[in-house]
Amino acid sequence: MSVLARVAYDGTDFHGFARQPGQETIQGRLERALKDVYGSSILVRGASRTDAGVHARGQLVAFERPQAPEIPLLGLHRALAGKLPDGLMVTRVWEHPGPEPAKPRFDNGGKLYRYRISTAPFRDPLEERFEWHVPRDLNLEAMRDAATRLAGERDFSAFRAADCQAKTTVRRIRRVELREVSPRRIEVEVDGEAFLKNMVRIMTGTLVDVGTGRVAPGDLDGILASRDRTRAGQTAPAHGLCLEQVFWDEPA
Amino acid sequence: MSVLARVAYDGTDFHGFARQPGQETIQGRLERALKDVYGSSILVRGASRTDAGVHARGQLVAFERPQAPEIPLLGLHRALAGKLPDGLMVTRVWEHPGPEPAKPRFDNGGKLYRYRISTAPFRDPLEERFEWHVPRDLNLEAMRDAATRLAGERDFSAFRAADCQAKTTVRRIRRVELREVSPRRIEVEVDGEAFLKNMVRIMTGTLVDVGTGRVAPGDLDGILASRDRTRAGQTAPAHGLCLEQVFWDEPA
Repeated sequence: MSVLARVAYDGTDFHGFARQPGQETIQGRLERALKDVYGSSILVRGASRTDAGVHARGQLVAFERPQAPEIPLLGLHRALAGKLPDGLMVTRVWEHPGPEPAKPRFDNGGKLYRYRISTAPFRDPLEERFEWHVPRDLNLEAMRDAATRLAGERDFSAFRAADCQAKTTVRRIRRVELREVSPRRIEVEVDGEAFLKNMVRIMTGTLVDVGTGRVAPGDLDGILASRDRTRAGQTAPAHGLCLEQVFWDEPA
Repeated sequence: MSVLARVAYDGTDFHGFARQPGQETIQGRLERALKDVYGSSILVRGASRTDAGVHARGQLVAFERPQAPEIPLLGLHRALAGKLPDGLMVTRVWEHPGPEPAKPRFDNGGKLYRYRISTAPFRDPLEERFEWHVPRDLNLEAMRDAATRLAGERDFSAFRAADCQAKTTVRRIRRVELREVSPRRIEVEVDGEAFLKNMVRIMTGTLVDVGTGRVAPGDLDGILASRDRTRAGQTAPAHGLCLEQVFWDEPA
């Protein structure tokens, strides 16, 4: 029977979610902790393969619980918590109902990403792990105009990494919102059904290019239509991005 | 003529404020940056010698500006910013009026410290650098009662590190306040004229001991009167503490 777990991490010191030999990764660390607990190898399936340096508050993973040893859920949660390193934690554990294995990657109800930008003249050492420092006066009105043009069901070919392997490039983005959370600190929130590789980072980088005047808001339609990655803006750095939520019908 | 500077840091990767040979310290890093900028050795004087692991948002330092090369303040700020490592930044630079050297350690108007505690069942990997994880139900009412007993002008001998070098032990604490900033997250704010070594950490540790019932609020008076460190509670770990402000009459 599948077990589902919420996972949070400070991505700074990890080489991303996906297991890689010889590298500290989220998936690798979770699998190592599970092996320590159960004494056998257990594969972890994640909802999102976050890039190296990207953070998460609401990553979702699933794995199959072995028959033995029998460990109640709370005990399993505590045992895992005791084996995970600094910067990584399982925040919730629950049982997937029904006999079919849970598929977090395919059966989720979409994802919410948040990208944080500081426009202060100097970086903030207590926040710098979690925000992109862009010491410029950004035109928020233009950025908001551009943001609305990125929402909807569109072909995001121009907004994916060159090495993106996805076979289809149409994705539905439910909402792109720009918020000034405090003076000189901006958050870009993107809520969508599914995403291409680096999509939120390229969207954010392009919005910043709009904010500095390098790209006009009205250009966004043409950039989307071009399906050409070189037409869109820069890729915002990984460390400003956080996977806030993977929507899932979980128990209250 | 003295230059004053506000300094912020994530203390995690530093061996405290005070210069130590062969160690990464805040003072050492600031002096190295100044040497890079001016080409000569310049001593930095800090308001507070924060312990290893303690953070700061409002540390205050002063140094004497050499006659040459002549660098305008904004240029100096930018030059320093470019030479400081991750986790350390100068947030403001200004000139001290008058011919007397500024003495941040002796002439400040007191300091404000904030100590953050998480009582959630599991640690939060995105916040854990800045908060002490105490997964317990703390009795906040008892802690508040105890906190008010720590304010005022008192002999804090029972609340200083064994190796504290201060000759006098009476200090005036203007305010000790406990706040629930969000569910299961508490901040202890301490505003005082001056502090003994580890004083805020021992105050906080003792308040947590009150919160768990190990110490009664009414015991605080006797602990203070005893002048005996062994009567007070545990020393809270460094990483939950932040020097928020060193009060100083600075330009608007």
